[in-house]
Amino acid sequence: MSDYAIGIDIGGSKIAAGLVDSKGQVLVRGQLPTPGFDPAAVLETVSTLIAQLGAVGKNTVVGVGAAGWMDLSGSTVAFSPHLSWREEPLRANLELTLGRRVLLSNDADAAGWAEYCFGAARGEENMVCVNLGTGIGGSLVLEGKLQRGRFGMAGEFGHQVMVPGGHRCACGNRGCWEQYASGRALEREGRALLAVHGAVGHQLREACGNDPHALSGEMVCALATAGDAACSELVIEAGQWLGLGLANLAAVLDPGIMVIGGGLGASSPLLLQTAEQTFRASLSGRGYRPFARVLGTELGPDAGLIGAAELARRTFMDH
Amino acid sequence: MSDYAIGIDIGGSKIAAGLVDSKGQVLVRGQLPTPGFDPAAVLETVSTLIAQLGAVGKNTVVGVGAAGWMDLSGSTVAFSPHLSWREEPLRANLELTLGRRVLLSNDADAAGWAEYCFGAARGEENMVCVNLGTGIGGSLVLEGKLQRGRFGMAGEFGHQVMVPGGHRCACGNRGCWEQYASGRALEREGRALLAVHGAVGHQLREACGNDPHALSGEMVCALATAGDAACSELVIEAGQWLGLGLANLAAVLDPGIMVIGGGLGASSPLLLQTAEQTFRASLSGRGYRPFARVLGTELGPDAGLIGAAELARRTFMDH
Repeated sequence: MSDYAIGIDIGGSKIAAGLVDSKGQVLVRGQLPTPGFDPAAVLETVSTLIAQLGAVGKNTVVGVGAAGWMDLSGSTVAFSPHLSWREEPLRANLELTLGRRVLLSNDADAAGWAEYCFGAARGEENMVCVNLGTGIGGSLVLEGKLQRGRFGMAGEFGHQVMVPGGHRCACGNRGCWEQYASGRALEREGRALLAVHGAVGHQLREACGNDPHALSGEMVCALATAGDAACSELVIEAGQWLGLGLANLAAVLDPGIMVIGGGLGASSPLLLQTAEQTFRASLSGRGYRPFARVLGTELGPDAGLIGAAELARRTFMDH
Repeated sequence: MSDYAIGIDIGGSKIAAGLVDSKGQVLVRGQLPTPGFDPAAVLETVSTLIAQLGAVGKNTVVGVGAAGWMDLSGSTVAFSPHLSWREEPLRANLELTLGRRVLLSNDADAAGWAEYCFGAARGEENMVCVNLGTGIGGSLVLEGKLQRGRFGMAGEFGHQVMVPGGHRCACGNRGCWEQYASGRALEREGRALLAVHGAVGHQLREACGNDPHALSGEMVCALATAGDAACSELVIEAGQWLGLGLANLAAVLDPGIMVIGGGLGASSPLLLQTAEQTFRASLSGRGYRPFARVLGTELGPDAGLIGAAELARRTFMDH
């Protein structure tokens, strides 16, 4: 049996695939846009991507990380906010289409597992990984075990309510963490800045071509890095909320390390630095206990497919 | 080697001791007031209580649960909010005084472990236990393991910030959960009710002899149970906050059961019922996932000493 596994990361905008070895190295890599909301087209795209990886042994297993709430057995997507899966038997469909054994994971769980095995959290048995993108996902490893909870839905850190009655969230609640500390927050506050037509927002207005819908969190972070004062303020505000949420997670879980991954996790030193400062200034019982380390992702955008492959490898192979 | 263990629960107001068998039954029990803030007097009181348990085998080990932040090895109390321990080598001191092997645990961890082994959470591998008293402590068991985090301080649920800039907390922060959902919240709001000298607070005023300092959370709960409208409102408000915090914990941990223990946990059906309703109305992704069960303690005030004994028994004995 081969010591490689195929990792697939199904996101809201793109699907990435890679052939990954047992050290977490990606040997071949491919990527295609996510084909809208059609489950059948998603299967086809995954199949195409695997074919593009070249000659891969027939017995090489597949790990799939996807943005959704998986049941504990890794067979069914209960619900996906960005894709049209509702109680979708995704594993069975993939195994039928691909003719390979498939393990299904939540994409944030996969990314966190990769950081734990090969990335920023190597050597630390108690990790919280915060997947910072448009929203906030997450994963937790305690005593070396990926914890998925009773029903497979642990780690939905972005939906801890931090502001009762606050901004409406897609999850049904108001005031969720991801409404204040993620790309969504930077977009909302960036658009609010443009809406008042003040001089301070002119760099952001130029960057998005005066189209608020073209504005993105990454854009705000990039302008902050380039020294724009208004965007720096937005990033600092999001970073403070990020740090407050980290302090809440540390009160509950007391991890040794908190890794900030996801699309936005590596995009702004200011965001990360502000988050760590606020975390240290906000940890309950500070002064009487050690601080968890706060670090950015080491594996970047490939973390999801690397972790998905490794979870499949460990599940299906002797090691 | 005996199949019994001695369990000790050191609280802010009383110290309880019991001889506990391997099924969690308390065979003999004793209790004395906590002697102020003097560590030496605490040791003496524990010694007296063990002597009062009668003829206990020389090799019977001792488990101690105490309100404080223990280091991971169970030797040192890093910090205790209610007792005068600061980096106190409590285990060594106890072993010297008692001539027995001693295991030290956080009191909420001990109580949660008892509910997991013998109480409300029997048969459920993923449990959150909320210790509701003057403040809020807690413990978590994931996949059958008591999780204490990297530094032994996991489960400090009461110090998740739920209201940024809210009521000041003894932990150094503002807006902690325990300021809204615990006995402390009922006391504060009860006193505020008395302070406005309105007719609605008259039953509470009578119950505490017109002395706001004599007012307690248990008193408010008892009056609510007896039908007093004003106290019922206070209990409902605290119960709603309790439910919101449970929803946050479920977003992070996705447990199968949430046990409400502690002095206040069993004292008001209205509090528990309101908390469960609010939890179900506030869980992120409700409708697409199962709900954790929300249950009151089964072991009541003995949970702490039972769990401390069981942790010692498992640590020191073959089983």
